[in-house]
Amino acid sequence: MTVSDLGEHALLARLLARLPRPGAQILVGPGDDAAVIEPGRRTRLVLTTDALVEDVHFSSAWSSPADIGHKALAVNLSDLAAMGAVPRWALVSLAFPPTYPVDAAEALMSGLAGLAAAHGVSVAGGNITRSPGPLVVDVAAGGEVSPRKWLSRSGGKAGDELWLSGAVGGARAGLEMLRDHAAAAMESPGLAACLSRHRRPEARVRLGVALARGSAARAAMDVSDGLADAVRQLAHASGCGARVDAEAVPVEAGARDWWAGRGQDVVSAAVAGGEDYELLLAIPRRWSGRLRHVVQRVTRPALTRIGALTREKELVLVRNGEAHAWPSGFEHFREPQA
Amino acid sequence: MTVSDLGEHALLARLLARLPRPGAQILVGPGDDAAVIEPGRRTRLVLTTDALVEDVHFSSAWSSPADIGHKALAVNLSDLAAMGAVPRWALVSLAFPPTYPVDAAEALMSGLAGLAAAHGVSVAGGNITRSPGPLVVDVAAGGEVSPRKWLSRSGGKAGDELWLSGAVGGARAGLEMLRDHAAAAMESPGLAACLSRHRRPEARVRLGVALARGSAARAAMDVSDGLADAVRQLAHASGCGARVDAEAVPVEAGARDWWAGRGQDVVSAAVAGGEDYELLLAIPRRWSGRLRHVVQRVTRPALTRIGALTREKELVLVRNGEAHAWPSGFEHFREPQA
Repeated sequence: MTVSDLGEHALLARLLARLPRPGAQILVGPGDDAAVIEPGRRTRLVLTTDALVEDVHFSSAWSSPADIGHKALAVNLSDLAAMGAVPRWALVSLAFPPTYPVDAAEALMSGLAGLAAAHGVSVAGGNITRSPGPLVVDVAAGGEVSPRKWLSRSGGKAGDELWLSGAVGGARAGLEMLRDHAAAAMESPGLAACLSRHRRPEARVRLGVALARGSAARAAMDVSDGLADAVRQLAHASGCGARVDAEAVPVEAGARDWWAGRGQDVVSAAVAGGEDYELLLAIPRRWSGRLRHVVQRVTRPALTRIGALTREKELVLVRNGEAHAWPSGFEHFREPQA
Repeated sequence: MTVSDLGEHALLARLLARLPRPGAQILVGPGDDAAVIEPGRRTRLVLTTDALVEDVHFSSAWSSPADIGHKALAVNLSDLAAMGAVPRWALVSLAFPPTYPVDAAEALMSGLAGLAAAHGVSVAGGNITRSPGPLVVDVAAGGEVSPRKWLSRSGGKAGDELWLSGAVGGARAGLEMLRDHAAAAMESPGLAACLSRHRRPEARVRLGVALARGSAARAAMDVSDGLADAVRQLAHASGCGARVDAEAVPVEAGARDWWAGRGQDVVSAAVAGGEDYELLLAIPRRWSGRLRHVVQRVTRPALTRIGALTREKELVLVRNGEAHAWPSGFEHFREPQA
């Protein structure tokens, strides 16, 4: 059965049934004209929105509906994590092609609901409509942070060290494997991890919240369009340049194998990357005690120092002791279709 | 020049330049991973989301980019108005076809920004991406309401009178004129008003806020998918039936002329309607003093009593003293393409 066979009201009822019960903060949940929410006392609201568009951000050929639902929320949680906010609520706006199967719509919502439940996020409301083109899943998410505790990308200062959570390149390598139908490669566990990073990214929620609470980072942003882009944007917003040590950048093991096995330059591919959803941080050296305190409590993913913000406005990638041109990052209108 | 010629970062800068300066509540505005907002003290947050999809909710053949931007925000403000919330912030998520002209994208944002400024709404953030299909403008909007003052659609009780703001049918008639290329008809001022109702709906913000502050309505919802649908939903959510006096329903003058001139049943068309963005209210008779107080301060649009909620769960449309079957409302997957 397709969504157009079922009709909007019945589809809405089926999708709402997939959601966990909203938290106590939700005074009016889905089903009214708008949601009503009681924010925490003396809290600051953190709000973001990000959309997944079929054949731009995912392909239904290699991501399941549950993957798509998970990812649509995860990319928003990643933005909240980069601000150090505790995620609380989400609004979900869905545009379905009329022929989209009802089962798939339900699975999509279950994928989203599973991640929401794991992070204590209430789906407070949303909207369903028809799309004459691609499936579009647009999420707006809200979180809370204490006054003056949030992490902005403009807070960095020259001399701050640049730190990166986890490893980059995995999602990009995973996407390349899927595009190349590299079935044999995908059977290796390391390479399979790359597929997961493309299909079901994890947002670094615990890390971002701990960094903000511990006042352990001066600037942060999430690495959604590649590390090269993130460093450029954080440095620019902070009025600095940056120097990154290419050899220090942690690359997902499977991605390293994938590119090395094809004779490609591992560092260039990983740094251009995309969809890493790690956190890039600017941290003064003298805050290392605070940082240690955070890392003792949030042990995964590991943090790695990859460079520093500089007074000179240039961006420099150092490889084998030599300065190299900065790689270009991902732009949504410029790159070949993902 | 198209959006793909310009690239994502440059397009974003151009669109941000169209926005009014964010209000004092916006501690971090567009350009970071997420917006940071300081809510009012002891406030409740009201959050909603609604998307406009090209060739579903509008046609670029007969709505200008500025119309589309205006409407994308207006439909969200209408949801907030129906809760009695003061609109405060919006997040704007845009998916552009790669060939979309930059001029049009700027005009779209100017249309949205103009309405935002008129209502003191800050565009706190957003997202731009590519669409391999239609233009999609998805807005999430937030407002504030005092504790226990919001208007839900489930608050009605049997015996409450049903009131309607303004007149219905205009947007639907306007859309029919546009589809029929009825250029001559559109030159009459009354019929031109119908086009405006389709292209640039007004949200009943002042009225909704005044009703909530004055505790003058027990239930409210906005009439976005036709009066027939709104009455059904408000009655159902309130656990009631409803009786509506068809002759009492105010129909937009131009719409009346349009349908009468074509030998169509005016009441049926107007009640099925769609895109009216008026408010439907359930108000106990003994609150008439409060209602009068509101109406003295918010004189437009006029309010009209059109029926009542009933203990019996049926929906009854009374015409010439006879009960008629309830007209079906608009559903996004069921109706012919708008």
